[in-house]
Amino acid sequence: MGSGGPLFIDVTWHPAGDPGSDKETSSMMIASTAVNYCGLESVLHLTCCNQSQEKITGHLAKAKQLGLKNIMALRGDPLGTDWEEEEEGFNYATDLVKHIRSEFDDYFDICVAGYPTGHPEAHSYEDDLKHLKEKVDAGADFIISQLFFRADTFLKFLRDCRSIGITCPILPGIFPIQGYQSLRQLVKLSKLEVPEEIMQIMEPIKDNDAAIRSYGIHQAVEMCRVLLDSGEVPGLHFYTLNREVATIEVLRQLGLWIEDPRRPLPWAMSANPKRKVEDVRPIFWASRPKSYIYRTQDWDDFPNGRWGNSSSPAFGELNDYYLFYLKSKSSKDALLKMWGEELTSEDSVYKVFTSYITGQANHGGHKVMCLPWNDEALAPETNLLKDELEKVNRRGVLTINSQPNINGKPSSDPIAGWGPAGGYVFQKAYLEFFTSSENVTALLKVLKKYEPRVNYHIVNVEGHNLTNAHDMQPNAVTWGIFPGREIVQPTVVDPVSFMYWKDEAFALWIEQWAKLYEDESPSRMIIKYIHDNYFLVNLVDNDFPLDSCLWQVLDDMFELLDAPPEPVSDGAVSE
Amino acid sequence: MGSGGPLFIDVTWHPAGDPGSDKETSSMMIASTAVNYCGLESVLHLTCCNQSQEKITGHLAKAKQLGLKNIMALRGDPLGTDWEEEEEGFNYATDLVKHIRSEFDDYFDICVAGYPTGHPEAHSYEDDLKHLKEKVDAGADFIISQLFFRADTFLKFLRDCRSIGITCPILPGIFPIQGYQSLRQLVKLSKLEVPEEIMQIMEPIKDNDAAIRSYGIHQAVEMCRVLLDSGEVPGLHFYTLNREVATIEVLRQLGLWIEDPRRPLPWAMSANPKRKVEDVRPIFWASRPKSYIYRTQDWDDFPNGRWGNSSSPAFGELNDYYLFYLKSKSSKDALLKMWGEELTSEDSVYKVFTSYITGQANHGGHKVMCLPWNDEALAPETNLLKDELEKVNRRGVLTINSQPNINGKPSSDPIAGWGPAGGYVFQKAYLEFFTSSENVTALLKVLKKYEPRVNYHIVNVEGHNLTNAHDMQPNAVTWGIFPGREIVQPTVVDPVSFMYWKDEAFALWIEQWAKLYEDESPSRMIIKYIHDNYFLVNLVDNDFPLDSCLWQVLDDMFELLDAPPEPVSDGAVSE
Repeated sequence: MGSGGPLFIDVTWHPAGDPGSDKETSSMMIASTAVNYCGLESVLHLTCCNQSQEKITGHLAKAKQLGLKNIMALRGDPLGTDWEEEEEGFNYATDLVKHIRSEFDDYFDICVAGYPTGHPEAHSYEDDLKHLKEKVDAGADFIISQLFFRADTFLKFLRDCRSIGITCPILPGIFPIQGYQSLRQLVKLSKLEVPEEIMQIMEPIKDNDAAIRSYGIHQAVEMCRVLLDSGEVPGLHFYTLNREVATIEVLRQLGLWIEDPRRPLPWAMSANPKRKVEDVRPIFWASRPKSYIYRTQDWDDFPNGRWGNSSSPAFGELNDYYLFYLKSKSSKDALLKMWGEELTSEDSVYKVFTSYITGQANHGGHKVMCLPWNDEALAPETNLLKDELEKVNRRGVLTINSQPNINGKPSSDPIAGWGPAGGYVFQKAYLEFFTSSENVTALLKVLKKYEPRVNYHIVNVEGHNLTNAHDMQPNAVTWGIFPGREIVQPTVVDPVSFMYWKDEAFALWIEQWAKLYEDESPSRMIIKYIHDNYFLVNLVDNDFPLDSCLWQVLDDMFELLDAPPEPVSDGAVSE
Repeated sequence: MGSGGPLFIDVTWHPAGDPGSDKETSSMMIASTAVNYCGLESVLHLTCCNQSQEKITGHLAKAKQLGLKNIMALRGDPLGTDWEEEEEGFNYATDLVKHIRSEFDDYFDICVAGYPTGHPEAHSYEDDLKHLKEKVDAGADFIISQLFFRADTFLKFLRDCRSIGITCPILPGIFPIQGYQSLRQLVKLSKLEVPEEIMQIMEPIKDNDAAIRSYGIHQAVEMCRVLLDSGEVPGLHFYTLNREVATIEVLRQLGLWIEDPRRPLPWAMSANPKRKVEDVRPIFWASRPKSYIYRTQDWDDFPNGRWGNSSSPAFGELNDYYLFYLKSKSSKDALLKMWGEELTSEDSVYKVFTSYITGQANHGGHKVMCLPWNDEALAPETNLLKDELEKVNRRGVLTINSQPNINGKPSSDPIAGWGPAGGYVFQKAYLEFFTSSENVTALLKVLKKYEPRVNYHIVNVEGHNLTNAHDMQPNAVTWGIFPGREIVQPTVVDPVSFMYWKDEAFALWIEQWAKLYEDESPSRMIIKYIHDNYFLVNLVDNDFPLDSCLWQVLDDMFELLDAPPEPVSDGAVSE
């Protein structure tokens, strides 16, 4: 749903009643992933009932550390029915709001819940309104309402809030009815009453799921129209219950679902407040953004405008976390099917890369959907280079990252575009691959012809580094020109960071691929051989207005390799 | 000679014997102008004999404040013949070197003089070498030699220096003979002997100036070749005696004169060490770089990579210095001839602007070579826009700054190019002018059609400010893409700085133009009227790949102004 551009998303806290589980981590981690990796502003729910102050402070400190800025402060449902107020504990959401403000000052934006028909446990509607006012006075920034079934219910609630001096934004909680049984259950849980006129419509069609869903959408749209027309509603909050279809349809019918395929930057920006100025990254982690964010999470400043000549970018140390945990979710079995149950030569590795590029099934009939360096299938942009990529991978130029040159496409271009309207985007052609030392020897000879058009960095696992970029400056390879702005250059080839990326890129051979096989097995030895002997190469064609010459560079390399008198060996056992 | 790319230039100190004159200011100011405005690394000579420590410290402090980094430490010729060593004074250059190091630590690079045949006052050649060693030991960084006539003389001197432990670079001082009499005079002053073989060649041709000059060049080239072939000479230092022809010819014949028309940036970089990172400036001061450098001289940081959103760029206060002293050197009389002895209407002002653009003589038969906002004749690049500029100036769009759009010309382009080889340069079309409030009213209507393609900032002397650039971000209007580099964006239209420039631009009407005329005179009143009532407008066409629409914007404005029912008045008495 992020593509619809929500102002924020909510992540609910683990249900009370299951306090011993590790689900608190899940809520926190879902919110963190949304913020840091998906760039979605998120509101983390937090319930306080039956929790110690220390535990709550611990949760909040962790949330802050992860870059979460917004908390939905809730009491939560008490355990069982024998709940009683605790002298020192959190008895109401107000206590939690006060606690957040006293421990974390203004760091968090705090949201609280409002009940358009009064909280079921409140003595009266008026009494509940007073509690809401207390929550706001304690420091809440805005209110999201409980679901309701009539626009009037909400609008009356809104006016009642205003009349007792609640001035903050109040968002109506919209619940599109999605099924007869689920509605009954929800209503029971939340102790709400479904209005008679709605029940009368639903009863006759209660066994027709499609009809109920269709009515639910219609009913929500009608209600939202009245709310929006009132001019008193700053936005809509949807209870999706993890199902997106109905909500998207309601938004569509309201004309509020504006799917904007344009990205603000070519990579997904993080919503972590620390990273909001970040607008430059090295191209190397393009397919491993989580690893990049993880390895740079301790940075105090993020590059803004230019990468700079930082000689020590202080990337996080290489560790199992991003080598292993951030890897593809596929099981070992699925990976073996994609990458080969048994490897017999380097050439079998070349075939895996080729299958990944072509999207065609391998010998075993399985498609290669990912590689250790690419969690996902080929990007649409890379697809433009498919034929060339296939050709070179077949011959052991094992590509892991590439982009075509672009000479001023509109920023609205569906494939290459990014950034504000009315701009133009540009790219230098880029190609990154592993290849054998024999190939590198030939490549270096060939590259002499392409000076200074092509910049290269070539390094092996030992860090033996060959380059023609002597001043070690970053090379901007993606940039955009926009109306009324300074130039934006979101990706660079940075020689210093390349050395950090190199460690990760080589380690992935072992950690994600070689270790799938038995110790000492030929398959593992083959991957190990590549890890130990191949070079990681990156090439930039600086002449972006011309067709990329990088394919010609590789053609020249193959030609040199094929030339007599000394035919170059395959380097391993043939199949 | 700066276009030949010298490593540095020397500026000699005022001659001893004239200590009461203000020439010390001249030396300092010539060096400062070379460094700050021409971007030429400079070595300021400084003589110490007969000077107090306080005075010398004062000179050095001033040099440091002006951004000078290099001092040629000399004793200087004593006054008269009765000079005696002073107990506490500076008796030798060594004393000056020690003084610089003790007072300014490592701030200055220090050069000292070496005498290939020994200083004429030294007891012996060996004794003089020892003095040289003392100067180096006291902290000198390198040596420039006195002139000599035989390569062997220098090479022997060099080896003798090395043999007593002088390890710093030693530059040979080359003097191309430029005339028979001048050589005799120089030799007399410096107490050198011209070798017999040179005299024998020169005597027969001594009355043939051209032949002497030609021989001088030949002789210098031969000598330089031997020096360079020795492999022991890190460069050549030329005694030009303020005449460039012979030295350039010697360098040409040596293949060392590589005139590189390419500029590192579109504007002249300063060699002031504080400004070495500076690579972004607002476009407004393009024709008044001295004023810009003056008004920003107190900045601690200079923009590097991006201009940023500085809301308070802290420009120096507007004062007479850069309104008056930095103006054109033309006399009042010459200015009146160019800009009109008597103005009879705003239209006579329009004619001055038009003459400046066309380069044609005005009514009085005088060419308008400069305007208060432009010290020099039209830039070659602006010449490309001549016809359009002429047309709009005739109608009271008084242009003071403009650039055409450029969509990726090679960085080597003789007119538009700048920056390293193999790159591409870009520009957004820019136009800046004064015009009447009637015109601005029509312009604002017209500009609605050009949203968001055209950004504008329109302001009058009171600071009444109209713009469609709501976020007040700088707009990059000149940028370059180069091999292996980040993007360079050397000029921006910055809305904040525009307000500072506005003060200067309006003040120039009064200070440089109106004040040429008698108080209360019609001419002065006309300029004053423009100053008080006109607006300063800047327009950027963001769509740089297309032909500039800015001329169309102005055509539309004229069309609207010309349209019935309400013809627009000329605004003043017609001629």
